[in-house]
Amino acid sequence: MLDFYYATDTCALATHIVLEDVGVDYVAHRVSFASGDQKSDDFVALNPKARVPVLITPSGILTETPAMMVYVAQLSPDADLACLSKPFAFAKVQEFNSYICSTLHVAHAHRMRGSRWADGEAAHEAMRAKVPESVGQCYRYLEDHVFVGPYVMGDRYTIADAYLFTVAQWMEGDGVDPADYPKIAAHRDLLSRRASVRAALETETAEDLGAV
Amino acid sequence: MLDFYYATDTCALATHIVLEDVGVDYVAHRVSFASGDQKSDDFVALNPKARVPVLITPSGILTETPAMMVYVAQLSPDADLACLSKPFAFAKVQEFNSYICSTLHVAHAHRMRGSRWADGEAAHEAMRAKVPESVGQCYRYLEDHVFVGPYVMGDRYTIADAYLFTVAQWMEGDGVDPADYPKIAAHRDLLSRRASVRAALETETAEDLGAV
Repeated sequence: MLDFYYATDTCALATHIVLEDVGVDYVAHRVSFASGDQKSDDFVALNPKARVPVLITPSGILTETPAMMVYVAQLSPDADLACLSKPFAFAKVQEFNSYICSTLHVAHAHRMRGSRWADGEAAHEAMRAKVPESVGQCYRYLEDHVFVGPYVMGDRYTIADAYLFTVAQWMEGDGVDPADYPKIAAHRDLLSRRASVRAALETETAEDLGAV
Repeated sequence: MLDFYYATDTCALATHIVLEDVGVDYVAHRVSFASGDQKSDDFVALNPKARVPVLITPSGILTETPAMMVYVAQLSPDADLACLSKPFAFAKVQEFNSYICSTLHVAHAHRMRGSRWADGEAAHEAMRAKVPESVGQCYRYLEDHVFVGPYVMGDRYTIADAYLFTVAQWMEGDGVDPADYPKIAAHRDLLSRRASVRAALETETAEDLGAV
Protein backbone atom coordinates (compact mmCIF):
# COMPACT_ATOMS: atom_id res chain seq x y z
CA MET A 1 0.00 0.00 0.00
CA LEU A 2 1.21 3.47 -0.90
CA ASP A 3 0.02 6.88 0.26
CA PHE A 4 0.19 9.62 -2.35
CA TYR A 5 -0.15 13.32 -1.58
CA TYR A 6 -1.07 15.68 -4.43
CA ALA A 7 -2.52 19.11 -5.03
CA THR A 8 -4.66 19.90 -8.05
CA ASP A 9 -3.07 21.62 -11.05
CA THR A 10 0.46 20.66 -10.02
CA CYS A 11 3.13 18.34 -11.35
CA ALA A 12 1.82 15.69 -8.93
CA LEU A 13 -0.56 14.64 -11.70
CA ALA A 14 2.31 12.94 -13.52
CA THR A 15 2.99 10.46 -10.72
CA HIS A 16 -0.74 10.10 -10.14
CA ILE A 17 -1.17 8.94 -13.74
CA VAL A 18 1.68 6.43 -13.43
CA LEU A 19 0.16 5.05 -10.21
CA GLU A 20 -2.98 4.37 -12.24
CA ASP A 21 -0.95 2.93 -15.12
CA VAL A 22 0.70 0.27 -12.97
CA GLY A 23 -2.49 -0.53 -11.06
CA VAL A 24 -0.85 -0.57 -7.64
CA ASP A 25 -2.82 -0.21 -4.41
CA TYR A 26 -2.63 3.39 -3.21
CA VAL A 27 -4.59 6.05 -1.38
CA ALA A 28 -4.64 9.56 -2.84
CA HIS A 29 -4.66 12.43 -0.35
CA ARG A 30 -5.49 15.92 -1.55
CA VAL A 31 -3.39 18.78 -0.18
CA SER A 32 -5.16 22.13 -0.48
CA PHE A 33 -2.73 24.93 -1.26
CA ALA A 34 -5.61 27.40 -0.82
CA SER A 35 -5.96 26.24 2.79
CA GLY A 36 -2.20 26.16 3.29
CA ASP A 37 -2.26 22.42 4.04
CA GLN A 38 1.28 22.09 2.69
CA LYS A 39 2.56 24.26 5.56
CA SER A 40 0.85 22.26 8.32
CA ASP A 41 3.06 20.57 10.91
CA ASP A 42 1.83 17.15 9.83
CA PHE A 43 2.65 17.72 6.18
CA VAL A 44 6.01 19.38 6.78
CA ALA A 45 6.93 16.36 8.90
CA LEU A 46 6.40 14.27 5.76
CA ASN A 47 8.11 16.72 3.43
CA PRO A 48 10.17 19.59 4.88
CA LYS A 49 10.07 21.22 1.42
CA ALA A 50 6.33 21.83 1.99
CA ARG A 51 5.54 20.80 -1.56
CA VAL A 52 3.78 18.07 -3.47
CA PRO A 53 3.98 15.34 -4.61
CA VAL A 54 4.89 13.05 -1.73
CA LEU A 55 4.77 9.25 -1.85
CA ILE A 56 4.84 7.17 1.32
CA THR A 57 6.23 3.74 0.50
CA PRO A 58 6.86 0.70 2.72
CA SER A 59 10.57 1.64 2.56
CA GLY A 60 10.22 5.33 3.34
CA ILE A 61 9.16 8.70 1.94
CA LEU A 62 9.83 9.91 -1.60
CA THR A 63 9.57 13.34 -3.21
CA GLU A 64 10.58 14.76 -6.62
CA THR A 65 8.57 13.70 -9.65
CA PRO A 66 11.34 12.13 -11.80
CA ALA A 67 12.40 9.90 -8.89
CA MET A 68 8.86 8.94 -7.92
CA MET A 69 7.74 8.07 -11.44
CA VAL A 70 10.65 5.68 -11.96
CA TYR A 71 10.04 4.09 -8.55
CA VAL A 72 6.35 3.55 -9.31
CA ALA A 73 7.16 2.22 -12.78
CA GLN A 74 9.43 -0.37 -11.16
CA LEU A 75 6.45 -1.73 -9.23
CA SER A 76 5.33 -3.25 -12.53
CA PRO A 77 8.53 -4.57 -14.15
CA ASP A 78 6.60 -6.29 -16.94
CA ALA A 79 5.08 -3.02 -18.12
CA ASP A 80 8.58 -1.44 -18.07
CA LEU A 81 7.11 2.06 -18.36
CA ALA A 82 10.53 3.64 -17.79
CA CYS A 83 12.43 1.39 -20.26
CA LEU A 84 14.62 0.37 -17.32
CA SER A 85 15.64 -2.83 -19.07
CA LYS A 86 17.57 -0.85 -21.72
CA PRO A 87 20.16 1.58 -20.31
CA PHE A 88 20.22 4.03 -23.24
CA ALA A 89 16.43 4.07 -23.67
CA PHE A 90 16.11 4.60 -19.91
CA ALA A 91 18.63 7.44 -20.12
CA LYS A 92 16.54 9.12 -22.84
CA VAL A 93 13.45 8.88 -20.60
CA GLN A 94 15.48 10.33 -17.74
CA GLU A 95 16.88 13.09 -19.98
CA PHE A 96 13.36 14.10 -20.93
CA ASN A 97 12.11 14.08 -17.34
CA SER A 98 15.13 16.03 -16.15
CA TYR A 99 14.54 18.69 -18.80
CA ILE A 100 10.90 19.01 -17.79
CA CYS A 101 11.65 19.41 -14.07
CA SER A 102 14.70 21.66 -14.34
CA THR A 103 13.85 23.78 -17.38
CA LEU A 104 10.20 23.69 -18.49
CA HIS A 105 8.61 23.50 -15.04
CA VAL A 106 11.06 26.12 -13.77
CA ALA A 107 10.20 28.50 -16.63
CA HIS A 108 6.51 28.01 -15.84
CA ALA A 109 7.04 28.62 -12.12
CA HIS A 110 8.22 32.17 -12.81
CA ARG A 111 4.59 33.08 -13.48
CA MET A 112 3.35 32.53 -9.94
CA ARG A 113 6.35 31.62 -7.80
CA GLY A 114 8.73 34.47 -8.58
CA SER A 115 9.24 35.13 -4.88
CA ARG A 116 11.47 32.07 -4.80
CA TRP A 117 14.08 33.91 -6.86
CA ALA A 118 13.63 37.65 -6.30
CA ASP A 119 11.90 40.13 -4.00
CA GLY A 120 9.72 42.99 -5.19
CA GLU A 121 6.67 43.27 -7.41
CA ALA A 122 8.61 44.84 -10.28
CA ALA A 123 10.89 41.81 -10.55
CA HIS A 124 7.93 39.43 -10.30
CA GLU A 125 6.14 41.35 -13.05
CA ALA A 126 9.25 41.14 -15.25
CA MET A 127 9.33 37.39 -14.64
CA ARG A 128 5.65 36.96 -15.48
CA ALA A 129 6.13 38.91 -18.70
CA LYS A 130 8.84 36.53 -19.90
CA VAL A 131 6.92 33.28 -19.27
CA PRO A 132 5.21 33.01 -22.69
CA GLU A 133 8.63 33.31 -24.35
CA SER A 134 10.64 31.06 -22.01
CA VAL A 135 7.99 28.34 -21.78
CA GLY A 136 7.37 28.60 -25.51
CA GLN A 137 11.08 28.01 -26.17
CA CYS A 138 10.86 24.80 -24.17
CA TYR A 139 7.98 23.51 -26.28
CA ARG A 140 9.77 24.61 -29.46
CA TYR A 141 12.77 22.50 -28.42
CA LEU A 142 10.60 19.51 -27.53
CA GLU A 143 8.50 19.75 -30.69
CA ASP A 144 11.47 20.22 -33.08
CA HIS A 145 14.18 18.07 -31.48
CA VAL A 146 12.83 15.60 -28.92
CA PHE A 147 9.27 14.40 -29.48
CA VAL A 148 9.10 11.30 -31.69
CA GLY A 149 5.37 10.56 -31.78
CA PRO A 150 2.77 9.43 -31.22
CA TYR A 151 4.34 9.10 -27.78
CA VAL A 152 7.34 11.07 -26.53
CA MET A 153 9.74 8.20 -27.17
CA GLY A 154 7.97 6.79 -30.23
CA ASP A 155 5.50 3.94 -30.47
CA ARG A 156 5.58 3.14 -26.82
CA TYR A 157 3.95 4.90 -23.84
CA THR A 158 6.40 5.70 -21.03
CA ILE A 159 6.43 7.79 -17.86
CA ALA A 160 7.70 10.69 -20.00
CA ASP A 161 4.24 10.86 -21.56
CA ALA A 162 2.55 11.26 -18.19
CA TYR A 163 4.95 14.12 -17.39
CA LEU A 164 4.51 15.91 -20.71
CA PHE A 165 0.73 15.68 -20.50
CA THR A 166 0.86 17.12 -16.98
CA VAL A 167 2.93 20.20 -17.74
CA ALA A 168 1.15 20.75 -21.07
CA GLN A 169 -2.02 21.45 -19.04
CA TRP A 170 -0.40 24.79 -18.18
CA MET A 171 0.25 25.97 -21.76
CA GLU A 172 -2.75 28.29 -22.10
CA GLY A 173 -2.23 29.77 -18.63
CA ASP A 174 1.38 30.45 -19.52
CA GLY A 175 0.36 32.32 -22.67
CA VAL A 176 1.61 29.58 -24.99
CA ASP A 177 -0.65 28.66 -27.93
CA PRO A 178 -0.88 24.86 -28.37
CA ALA A 179 -1.61 25.44 -32.07
CA ASP A 180 2.03 26.46 -32.50
CA TYR A 181 3.11 22.98 -31.38
CA PRO A 182 0.97 20.50 -33.30
CA LYS A 183 2.81 17.37 -32.11
CA ILE A 184 2.46 18.37 -28.46
CA ALA A 185 -1.18 19.29 -29.02
CA ALA A 186 -1.91 15.92 -30.64
CA HIS A 187 -0.18 14.22 -27.72
CA ARG A 188 -2.41 16.05 -25.23
CA ASP A 189 -5.42 14.85 -27.14
CA LEU A 190 -4.13 11.27 -27.26
CA LEU A 191 -3.32 11.18 -23.56
CA SER A 192 -6.60 12.79 -22.54
CA ARG A 193 -8.35 9.64 -23.77
CA ARG A 194 -6.08 7.27 -21.82
CA ALA A 195 -7.80 5.42 -18.96
CA SER A 196 -5.06 6.14 -16.39
CA VAL A 197 -5.12 9.85 -17.21
CA ARG A 198 -8.90 10.03 -16.95
CA ALA A 199 -8.87 8.18 -13.62
CA ALA A 200 -6.21 10.44 -12.10
CA LEU A 201 -7.93 13.59 -13.34
CA GLU A 202 -11.31 12.38 -12.07
CA THR A 203 -9.91 11.96 -8.57
CA GLU A 204 -8.05 15.27 -8.65
CA THR A 205 -11.08 17.26 -9.78
CA ALA A 206 -13.73 15.52 -7.65
CA GLU A 207 -15.50 18.09 -5.46
CA ASP A 208 -16.26 15.92 -2.45
CA LEU A 209 -12.68 15.64 -1.24
CA GLY A 210 -12.36 18.97 0.48
CA ALA A 211 -11.16 20.98 -2.51
CA VAL A 212 -11.33 24.72 -1.94
CA MET B 1 34.45 4.79 -26.39
CA LEU B 2 32.56 7.84 -25.22
CA ASP B 3 32.98 11.51 -26.09
CA PHE B 4 32.26 13.92 -23.27
CA TYR B 5 31.80 17.68 -23.71
CA TYR B 6 32.21 19.91 -20.67
CA ALA B 7 32.90 23.51 -19.77
CA THR B 8 34.85 24.49 -16.68
CA ASP B 9 32.96 25.59 -13.56
CA THR B 10 29.72 23.99 -14.73
CA CYS B 11 27.60 21.05 -13.60
CA ALA B 12 29.42 18.94 -16.22
CA LEU B 13 32.01 18.20 -13.53
CA ALA B 14 29.57 15.79 -11.88
CA THR B 15 29.41 13.46 -14.88
CA HIS B 16 33.13 13.95 -15.45
CA ILE B 17 33.82 12.61 -11.97
CA VAL B 18 31.57 9.58 -12.52
CA LEU B 19 33.32 8.82 -15.82
CA GLU B 20 36.54 8.66 -13.83
CA ASP B 21 34.88 6.59 -11.09
CA VAL B 22 33.81 3.83 -13.47
CA GLY B 23 37.10 3.87 -15.39
CA VAL B 24 35.48 3.78 -18.82
CA ASP B 25 37.30 4.82 -21.99
CA TYR B 26 36.33 8.38 -22.90
CA VAL B 27 37.67 11.54 -24.49
CA ALA B 28 36.99 14.84 -22.73
CA HIS B 29 36.37 17.86 -24.98
CA ARG B 30 36.47 21.32 -23.49
CA VAL B 31 33.79 23.78 -24.62
CA SER B 32 34.81 27.40 -24.03
CA PHE B 33 31.85 29.53 -23.05
CA ALA B 34 34.13 32.58 -23.25
CA SER B 35 34.70 31.83 -26.94
CA GLY B 36 31.03 31.01 -27.49
CA ASP B 37 31.88 27.43 -28.54
CA GLN B 38 28.51 26.26 -27.27
CA LYS B 39 26.77 28.33 -29.96
CA SER B 40 28.83 26.99 -32.86
CA ASP B 41 27.01 25.08 -35.60
CA ASP B 42 28.95 21.93 -34.79
CA PHE B 43 28.07 22.01 -31.12
CA VAL B 44 24.42 22.96 -31.62
CA ALA B 45 24.16 19.99 -33.99
CA LEU B 46 25.13 17.81 -31.03
CA ASN B 47 22.96 19.64 -28.51
CA PRO B 48 20.32 22.12 -29.75
CA LYS B 49 20.11 23.43 -26.17
CA ALA B 50 23.63 24.85 -26.65
CA ARG B 51 24.65 23.74 -23.18
CA VAL B 52 26.96 21.29 -21.49
CA PRO B 53 27.36 18.51 -20.58
CA VAL B 54 26.92 16.32 -23.64
CA LEU B 55 27.84 12.64 -23.84
CA ILE B 56 28.20 10.86 -27.17
CA THR B 57 27.57 7.15 -26.65
CA PRO B 58 27.57 4.24 -29.11
CA SER B 59 23.75 4.34 -28.91
CA GLY B 60 23.30 8.09 -29.36
CA ILE B 61 23.64 11.49 -27.70
CA LEU B 62 22.76 12.23 -24.08
CA THR B 63 22.30 15.49 -22.19
CA GLU B 64 21.03 16.38 -18.68
CA THR B 65 23.25 15.52 -15.73
CA PRO B 66 20.90 13.24 -13.75
CA ALA B 67 20.31 11.07 -16.84
CA MET B 68 23.96 10.96 -17.86
CA MET B 69 25.28 10.07 -14.40
CA VAL B 70 22.95 7.07 -14.11
CA TYR B 71 23.85 5.95 -17.64
CA VAL B 72 27.57 6.14 -16.89
CA ALA B 73 27.09 4.37 -13.54
CA GLN B 74 25.41 1.50 -15.39
CA LEU B 75 28.59 0.97 -17.41
CA SER B 76 30.04 -0.52 -14.22
CA PRO B 77 27.20 -2.62 -12.75
CA ASP B 78 29.45 -4.12 -10.08
CA ALA B 79 30.27 -0.71 -8.62
CA ASP B 80 26.51 0.08 -8.58
CA LEU B 81 27.22 3.78 -8.00
CA ALA B 82 23.54 4.66 -8.45
CA CYS B 83 22.18 1.85 -6.20
CA LEU B 84 20.22 0.64 -9.22
CA SER B 85 19.95 -2.83 -7.74
CA LYS B 86 17.65 -1.53 -4.98
CA PRO B 87 14.58 0.40 -6.20
CA PHE B 88 14.04 2.51 -3.09
CA ALA B 89 17.73 3.34 -2.62
CA PHE B 90 17.90 4.23 -6.32
CA ALA B 91 14.84 6.44 -5.91
CA LYS B 92 16.55 8.30 -3.05
CA VAL B 93 19.60 8.90 -5.26
CA GLN B 94 17.28 10.12 -8.01
CA GLU B 95 15.35 12.32 -5.57
CA PHE B 96 18.59 13.97 -4.51
CA ASN B 97 19.78 14.52 -8.08
CA SER B 98 16.41 15.87 -9.13
CA TYR B 99 16.45 18.37 -6.26
CA ILE B 100 19.93 19.53 -7.21
CA CYS B 101 19.08 20.07 -10.88
CA SER B 102 15.62 21.59 -10.46
CA THR B 103 16.03 23.60 -7.24
CA LEU B 104 19.62 24.19 -6.11
CA HIS B 105 21.19 24.62 -9.55
CA VAL B 106 18.22 26.76 -10.63
CA ALA B 107 18.59 29.02 -7.57
CA HIS B 108 22.30 29.40 -8.36
CA ALA B 109 21.60 30.17 -12.02
CA HIS B 110 19.72 33.32 -11.06
CA ARG B 111 23.08 34.93 -10.28
CA MET B 112 24.38 34.95 -13.85
CA ARG B 113 21.61 33.59 -16.08
CA GLY B 114 18.70 35.80 -15.08
CA SER B 115 18.03 36.65 -18.73
CA ARG B 116 16.49 33.20 -19.07
CA TRP B 117 13.56 34.26 -16.91
CA ALA B 118 13.22 38.06 -17.14
CA ASP B 119 14.35 41.03 -19.22
CA GLY B 120 15.89 44.16 -17.77
CA GLU B 121 18.84 44.93 -15.53
CA ALA B 122 16.63 45.80 -12.54
CA ALA B 123 15.05 42.35 -12.56
CA HIS B 124 18.44 40.68 -12.96
CA GLU B 125 19.81 42.68 -10.04
CA ALA B 126 16.82 41.65 -7.90
CA MET B 127 17.55 38.02 -8.82
CA ARG B 128 21.25 38.31 -7.98
CA ALA B 129 20.38 39.86 -4.63
CA LYS B 130 18.25 36.87 -3.65
CA VAL B 131 20.81 34.15 -4.53
CA PRO B 132 22.57 33.96 -1.14
CA GLU B 133 19.18 33.41 0.52
CA SER B 134 17.67 30.98 -2.01
CA VAL B 135 20.83 28.91 -2.45
CA GLY B 136 21.41 28.99 1.30
CA GLN B 137 17.92 27.58 1.88
CA CYS B 138 18.79 24.65 -0.37
CA TYR B 139 21.91 23.84 1.65
CA ARG B 140 19.94 24.27 4.91
CA TYR B 141 17.46 21.67 3.66
CA LEU B 142 20.20 19.29 2.54
CA GLU B 143 22.22 19.71 5.74
CA ASP B 144 19.25 19.34 8.10
CA HIS B 145 17.04 16.80 6.33
CA VAL B 146 18.86 14.90 3.58
CA PHE B 147 22.60 14.45 4.08
CA VAL B 148 23.42 11.28 6.02
CA GLY B 149 27.22 11.32 6.09
CA PRO B 150 30.00 10.83 5.48
CA TYR B 151 28.52 10.46 1.99
CA VAL B 152 25.16 11.85 0.87
CA MET B 153 23.42 8.48 1.27
CA GLY B 154 25.48 7.23 4.22
CA ASP B 155 28.50 4.97 4.24
CA ARG B 156 28.56 4.46 0.53
CA TYR B 157 29.75 6.76 -2.26
CA THR B 158 27.17 7.26 -5.03
CA ILE B 159 26.67 9.55 -8.02
CA ALA B 160 24.84 11.92 -5.65
CA ASP B 161 28.20 12.69 -4.06
CA ALA B 162 29.74 13.73 -7.36
CA TYR B 163 26.78 16.04 -7.96
CA LEU B 164 26.86 17.61 -4.49
CA PHE B 165 30.60 18.22 -4.68
CA THR B 166 30.13 19.89 -8.07
CA VAL B 167 27.46 22.39 -7.07
CA ALA B 168 29.12 23.02 -3.71
CA GLN B 169 32.06 24.53 -5.64
CA TRP B 170 29.76 27.51 -6.24
CA MET B 171 28.90 28.24 -2.58
CA GLU B 172 31.34 31.10 -2.01
CA GLY B 173 30.49 32.72 -5.36
CA ASP B 174 26.82 32.54 -4.45
CA GLY B 175 27.44 34.33 -1.15
CA VAL B 176 26.83 31.20 0.93
CA ASP B 177 29.25 30.54 3.79
CA PRO B 178 30.28 26.87 3.93
CA ALA B 179 30.90 27.28 7.67
CA ASP B 180 27.13 27.46 8.15
CA TYR B 181 26.82 23.95 6.72
CA PRO B 182 29.47 21.83 8.45
CA LYS B 183 28.32 18.49 7.00
CA ILE B 184 28.40 19.82 3.45
CA ALA B 185 31.78 21.45 4.10
CA ALA B 186 33.20 18.18 5.46
CA HIS B 187 31.85 16.40 2.39
CA ARG B 188 33.62 18.86 0.09
CA ASP B 189 36.84 18.17 1.92
CA LEU B 190 36.34 14.40 1.74
CA LEU B 191 35.53 14.44 -1.97
CA SER B 192 38.39 16.78 -2.83
CA ARG B 193 40.77 13.99 -1.86
CA ARG B 194 39.04 11.35 -4.00
CA ALA B 195 41.08 10.15 -6.98
CA SER B 196 38.23 10.47 -9.50
CA VAL B 197 37.52 14.04 -8.39
CA ARG B 198 41.17 15.04 -8.61
CA ALA B 199 41.51 13.50 -12.06
CA ALA B 200 38.41 15.26 -13.42
CA LEU B 201 39.45 18.60 -11.90
CA GLU B 202 42.98 18.24 -13.22
CA THR B 203 41.67 17.83 -16.77
CA GLU B 204 39.17 20.66 -16.43
CA THR B 205 41.71 23.13 -15.09
CA ALA B 206 44.64 22.21 -17.35
CA GLU B 207 45.79 25.27 -19.27
CA ASP B 208 46.99 23.57 -22.43
CA LEU B 209 43.55 22.65 -23.68
CA GLY B 210 42.49 25.98 -25.05
CA ALA B 211 40.89 27.39 -21.93
CA VAL B 212 40.28 31.12 -22.09
